[in-house]
Amino acid sequence: MPKGKNQGERALYDELVQRARETSLLGSCSAVLGWDEQTYMPEGAAAHRGEQMALLAGLAHERATAPRMGELLEALGESSLAADGDSIEGANVRQLKRDYDRRTKLPRPLVEELARTTSLAQQEWIVARRESDYKRFQPWLERVVDLKRKESECVGAGQDARGRDAAALVYDPLLDEYEQGAETTRLRTLFTALRQELTPLVGEIVEAAKNRPGHAGILERSFPVDRQKTFGEAAASALGFDFQRGRLDVSAHPFCTGIGPGDVRVTTRYDERQFGDAFFGVLHEVGHGLYEQGLPVEQYGTPAGEAASLGVHESQSRLWENAVGRSPAFWRYWFPMARRVFHESLHDVSIDRFLAAVNQVEPTLIRVQADEVTYNLHILIRFELEQALLAGDLAAADLPSAWNDAYRETLGIVPKNDAEGCLQDVHWSAGLFGYFPTYSLGNVYAAQLFQKARRDLPALDESFDRGEYHELLAWLRDKVHIHGQRYAPATLIERAVEGPIDSHVLIAALRHKYGSLYNL
Amino acid sequence: MPKGKNQGERALYDELVQRARETSLLGSCSAVLGWDEQTYMPEGAAAHRGEQMALLAGLAHERATAPRMGELLEALGESSLAADGDSIEGANVRQLKRDYDRRTKLPRPLVEELARTTSLAQQEWIVARRESDYKRFQPWLERVVDLKRKESECVGAGQDARGRDAAALVYDPLLDEYEQGAETTRLRTLFTALRQELTPLVGEIVEAAKNRPGHAGILERSFPVDRQKTFGEAAASALGFDFQRGRLDVSAHPFCTGIGPGDVRVTTRYDERQFGDAFFGVLHEVGHGLYEQGLPVEQYGTPAGEAASLGVHESQSRLWENAVGRSPAFWRYWFPMARRVFHESLHDVSIDRFLAAVNQVEPTLIRVQADEVTYNLHILIRFELEQALLAGDLAAADLPSAWNDAYRETLGIVPKNDAEGCLQDVHWSAGLFGYFPTYSLGNVYAAQLFQKARRDLPALDESFDRGEYHELLAWLRDKVHIHGQRYAPATLIERAVEGPIDSHVLIAALRHKYGSLYNL
Repeated sequence: MPKGKNQGERALYDELVQRARETSLLGSCSAVLGWDEQTYMPEGAAAHRGEQMALLAGLAHERATAPRMGELLEALGESSLAADGDSIEGANVRQLKRDYDRRTKLPRPLVEELARTTSLAQQEWIVARRESDYKRFQPWLERVVDLKRKESECVGAGQDARGRDAAALVYDPLLDEYEQGAETTRLRTLFTALRQELTPLVGEIVEAAKNRPGHAGILERSFPVDRQKTFGEAAASALGFDFQRGRLDVSAHPFCTGIGPGDVRVTTRYDERQFGDAFFGVLHEVGHGLYEQGLPVEQYGTPAGEAASLGVHESQSRLWENAVGRSPAFWRYWFPMARRVFHESLHDVSIDRFLAAVNQVEPTLIRVQADEVTYNLHILIRFELEQALLAGDLAAADLPSAWNDAYRETLGIVPKNDAEGCLQDVHWSAGLFGYFPTYSLGNVYAAQLFQKARRDLPALDESFDRGEYHELLAWLRDKVHIHGQRYAPATLIERAVEGPIDSHVLIAALRHKYGSLYNL
Repeated sequence: MPKGKNQGERALYDELVQRARETSLLGSCSAVLGWDEQTYMPEGAAAHRGEQMALLAGLAHERATAPRMGELLEALGESSLAADGDSIEGANVRQLKRDYDRRTKLPRPLVEELARTTSLAQQEWIVARRESDYKRFQPWLERVVDLKRKESECVGAGQDARGRDAAALVYDPLLDEYEQGAETTRLRTLFTALRQELTPLVGEIVEAAKNRPGHAGILERSFPVDRQKTFGEAAASALGFDFQRGRLDVSAHPFCTGIGPGDVRVTTRYDERQFGDAFFGVLHEVGHGLYEQGLPVEQYGTPAGEAASLGVHESQSRLWENAVGRSPAFWRYWFPMARRVFHESLHDVSIDRFLAAVNQVEPTLIRVQADEVTYNLHILIRFELEQALLAGDLAAADLPSAWNDAYRETLGIVPKNDAEGCLQDVHWSAGLFGYFPTYSLGNVYAAQLFQKARRDLPALDESFDRGEYHELLAWLRDKVHIHGQRYAPATLIERAVEGPIDSHVLIAALRHKYGSLYNL
């Protein structure tokens, strides 16, 4: 091929990347404002913040959908530079094209209205949740559902309807934003399997637990917040979270946000009477944070420098929270320290009782506090309810009773109020519909990744005994983090585990672990 | 005049306002990022933050200098709507024209480079100050001075040079950004008067103090930081600062930023061994914050909804910090509470000794901790040094020695290191040249405003006795806050005090107060 053509392609590619980086930079300004909104913003600023978010979203949309982007993508789509879809250049062109196609289907007023409404709705949600006042939140939920339905209509226009019902048709375009390649119908199959396998397992555990004392009360003794903070930060540092390039703050709903290179922020919430809530929350968000801190800095602002998908993101958080953080090897190192720090509450507790407490399985009401076994049942409830809301099969006014019915049926318990019911999660107020099922995908991926890491790194447990995690982190960096969006999410995981994605690994791991813990 | 013409003018005006608001909104996004940079941003994020700030500054510049802005301003400049320069419409057109003229003289690359460089320089300043390492900061100062000189050249191009020396020619365009209508030559006259009057007063006080014990040591006992925080917040609330629409945080250099309606944030810094540093710092920044919270919300995003000038801003902070916060009436209410909160350190202190301590006059090294009498001497040192830096009469390499010489000559003391010398203030790292003299203008305005308020409100001291400040706040809202930039700064003050601006009111007030405190 003549050299001139290659140089021309390179120049077009460089321009594409430059434009993508500028759009990302603008998005990263929104990320700072979003973080601030959740952590420190005064309540009175809500309306103004909505306007700020709308403006930035509109500007980003304008840039991302500029006609020049379309020209560049078209020219590069046929180029030799992007011919290899697994090369960095190929992946960037492919993913930017996907983003461009999606964004150009959305009118700017809708983008701005979504940013404005979800910014305000999140503030209303905070108050509604605090006061357990669903009526206050309901009109905002209606507005958000309506806008998300419009978004789905725009993005999904002209999609092939074969083999999908009405709910899947409205849900798929939203789901695809978070988990490229995922499909509603296949997720339903996954959740059916999870329900069939996990419901009897929960039943067996609950039955077995009747004949022996519970231990969770240990975690509900007094754990002064300032010491929880110090202890959690120590663990976060040990895992490899870099506080020179990140922060840990408090918010109503824990989250992680990657603002840019050198700026990854996680949050948690503290309750003196709930050790596990904040501690495992920190491990979870730090898992996300380690992924963000491990993305290739030189690719920042392009898809190759961004997380592969929400499912992959969640695989990282769940792996650190559960596979590492609830393991005996982890606590062999940390429990003696915990006993010194929280002497009043742990001096009479053995490591075995403590391990039983942090691994207690019990149907409970709050998703983020749920154990590993019941967790996916919380997700499937949300997965079904949000499809119904979007499809118009469930009115927002009927959400609380539908929620409570689903909990009764699936977990055998009913929320006393909406704060611990349908108001517990921030997601819907933030417009995150189609987001919840990625949590279960993350669990599936995490189980497979951890299984493979243990095979590749036979001394893993011994390194945990010493409070060292760099071997595991290096493995995850190499297999997952460093690749950004170079491969499709499922491909990335399949390459990492050297096999197909299979939810039975998760189910088998849970059966094995809890079968032994509860002597089933 | 035919109705059609009026309607046409109104439509143009509405479009102008809409555009101005959008630019302000973008500026308010920068304000959030700027606040974050000073308070919570991790160190590793500095480079990325510089890029974010540059992008937002560039976008704001692009909008503010759009050709359509020029067309609208030209059309409205001749309109009947803007004919009355004291009407809100007239003031908005006048001030937006001023801003447009100024901005269109600045090339966008310079605007972006200034935003990027000052963002990075502030991070370097934090480290350099912490480690008292001027050499580390020097190249950044050189870069900032160079950029500000270019800014001055652009803005000042074609100005009338008569009656001004080289330093005034480079300084005036920068000064005018912060204090509309101020001139270097007139400021020099002001500072000459302040030097002539205050230097002997300081001498007399230092002489008188030799024969009696100092009391400042009282404020250097132990004042636990968490209690300082609570006490400061209580005072801030009592003064009228609305925490529903604002925050108080910690930063290396205290500041106030008005992000938008409902979002005004102040900062301070705590030292267990310096009660006065944080407490009067809080009163000072809250003074700024009350002004921001008092601006007319319905005019937000236009000049009529923005503070009149830095000098007027500083008049508010200095009035609350000094005229109110160091008065006997103020402490008659707060001292008993302080004695309860800080019992260990204040149980043996009488209110008279405490008042002597908070009003102790003594040449010291740190501007923000300086007493009212020496304060303006700190300012005149900076005013002279920054003129010399900009004019090229002083090389950045020679700043530390020039600084130390000036302190020896003016205040008779010399910094032990650069952290308490030329590295103490954030301003130059942030590109704020021409900013310092507005502090002294603020002192002049504050003295006159407070004198007038006392005349208008004879029961003021009695309200302070009860810990009530709403009478004074209402007076300031009515005379100053509510007007935004409707009048030029000097005009605003002259209208409020019903007389000409006169620095002798400040000098007389200081002579009166400290003559009596020190029995001169």
